[in-house]
Amino acid sequence: MRVPILVYHERAADKYAAFLTAHGCTQVYTAANGEEARTRLAETPIEVIYGYGFPLDAIAASNTVRWVQLMSAGVDAVLRQGRLPSHITLTRMLDVFSRPMAEYAFAYLLHIEKEIDRLREQQVSNTWKSFRAGVLHDKTIGVAGLGSIGQDVVKKARAFDMTVYGMSRSGAQSATVDRHFTPDLWLDFVKELDYLVLTLPLTDKTRHAVNESVLGAMKRDAILVNVGRGALVDERALVSALRDRRLRAAALDVFEVEPLPSDSLLWTLSNAYVTPHMSGPTTVENAGQYFLDNLKRYEQGLQLPGVVDWETGY
Amino acid sequence: MRVPILVYHERAADKYAAFLTAHGCTQVYTAANGEEARTRLAETPIEVIYGYGFPLDAIAASNTVRWVQLMSAGVDAVLRQGRLPSHITLTRMLDVFSRPMAEYAFAYLLHIEKEIDRLREQQVSNTWKSFRAGVLHDKTIGVAGLGSIGQDVVKKARAFDMTVYGMSRSGAQSATVDRHFTPDLWLDFVKELDYLVLTLPLTDKTRHAVNESVLGAMKRDAILVNVGRGALVDERALVSALRDRRLRAAALDVFEVEPLPSDSLLWTLSNAYVTPHMSGPTTVENAGQYFLDNLKRYEQGLQLPGVVDWETGY
Repeated sequence: MRVPILVYHERAADKYAAFLTAHGCTQVYTAANGEEARTRLAETPIEVIYGYGFPLDAIAASNTVRWVQLMSAGVDAVLRQGRLPSHITLTRMLDVFSRPMAEYAFAYLLHIEKEIDRLREQQVSNTWKSFRAGVLHDKTIGVAGLGSIGQDVVKKARAFDMTVYGMSRSGAQSATVDRHFTPDLWLDFVKELDYLVLTLPLTDKTRHAVNESVLGAMKRDAILVNVGRGALVDERALVSALRDRRLRAAALDVFEVEPLPSDSLLWTLSNAYVTPHMSGPTTVENAGQYFLDNLKRYEQGLQLPGVVDWETGY
Repeated sequence: MRVPILVYHERAADKYAAFLTAHGCTQVYTAANGEEARTRLAETPIEVIYGYGFPLDAIAASNTVRWVQLMSAGVDAVLRQGRLPSHITLTRMLDVFSRPMAEYAFAYLLHIEKEIDRLREQQVSNTWKSFRAGVLHDKTIGVAGLGSIGQDVVKKARAFDMTVYGMSRSGAQSATVDRHFTPDLWLDFVKELDYLVLTLPLTDKTRHAVNESVLGAMKRDAILVNVGRGALVDERALVSALRDRRLRAAALDVFEVEPLPSDSLLWTLSNAYVTPHMSGPTTVENAGQYFLDNLKRYEQGLQLPGVVDWETGY
């Protein structure tokens, strides 16, 4: 494949580029920062950018770029920079992260229900003491965001014999859930939930969607899992709800500011499970294979999956 | 329902009896030990026994008992006592424990793969450090025992996009798995597995089925989950495999001797997860409802589910 490609990654551009070269791409360039990107785009007729994030303004140095493939499912950080001219297609990654992220959600729901921490403490103290652990079956889970990640959560929830509610803007996947809600009905959506899993994109409309009133409408023994974006949740309101036990627990892989500031109370709350944005890992292989598949479609003039809509913001 | 019923439970016979009375049974008696059971059976024309375990020899005091419903899925402890006359039906519980036990298996597989203990330690030390956690998808799971518990493990494994191998004596459910093995092929069964989940009954043929040579045939990074019976596994061989890291980890809810003796090395091995036989909890409600459903079938002369075969031992 002879299309000139610029691989953009602040730490590992060489590795991502090497994967492409090893799989038949003959014109692969790299950049690790905006300066290198601008220089390369000024010197070389780059047609495709494959990047983990990208400084959009650097594209002004090129009149050959036609397609930017991001190595992430979330594109809020890139979209905050502004907008690309309409002849350039911006795509995000679909499906690549769905399964590990859905696994993360169930890992924590099960961890909390089965009280594995308590069992581990019993083991350390040589204590044989049975108790009634919780179960997932017959509980109600709400999945906010029914894209590829949300759909995989729905699929697993079915296997755990749960009732499944879903929320999405478009309602395109509403047939896959028992009840579907649009974003104007957050309070109705959450009030019966035992578990709420956030897989939404971050946009102007979803920012702080889970605010004090939504948290207040949730059941006191509900569990929140956020694998979407930190700013979907009003973190101050969440800290307060967790501290006052108005919410049972939260498993959080994303935060309003990352890394999570060391003075955040989330670090210290025993019912907050803090993980360092790792539930949907990008690897050279999974991202690379996704990009190569798309590159073939691009070369054949086929429609690309994951084209970002600048209006909706994902 | 006017059938005379004896509820047998060493600690909570009254509670189990109260549930039956509240649901329309008019002749309900209780016994908490063999002596009480013998006395009651000598005095009252008991027709049905509903018990968590039962001293079979006490039935000699009665010539009216026709059916014994046990409150457990495993019946090895009762069968070890001997045999009932052929006009008395012995049934075990099916399905009641399947979902919590399958949840237990996935709780620990996910806990171990996602390294939740390590993440918890990072949180306690205020450390934001990403790493690549493991995934379940595309792994191979082996389910030994394809009864109602094993079938629920299979169902969930499908939702996690795993390859599923199964082992059973009869092969009746072999169509539900990708490859089926009979018990003469343990070494072939285990050698490709990433996870082995034991849901087998304990019989003369399954005792120590997972012995040193089976453990030796397993992959070094495989995980064992035992929710069946402790004696399915040669515990000495397991301790040695875990200690030498010839097996990655084991989540064990059942043991050769329960409570697990305080000097067992399993308590202290960091890659052994010891839980106090609680993965499939019997409750007054779930066991009671199961019994009532069966009692209706009994009164109507219908076939009962879970009839124990004295030859196969389950």
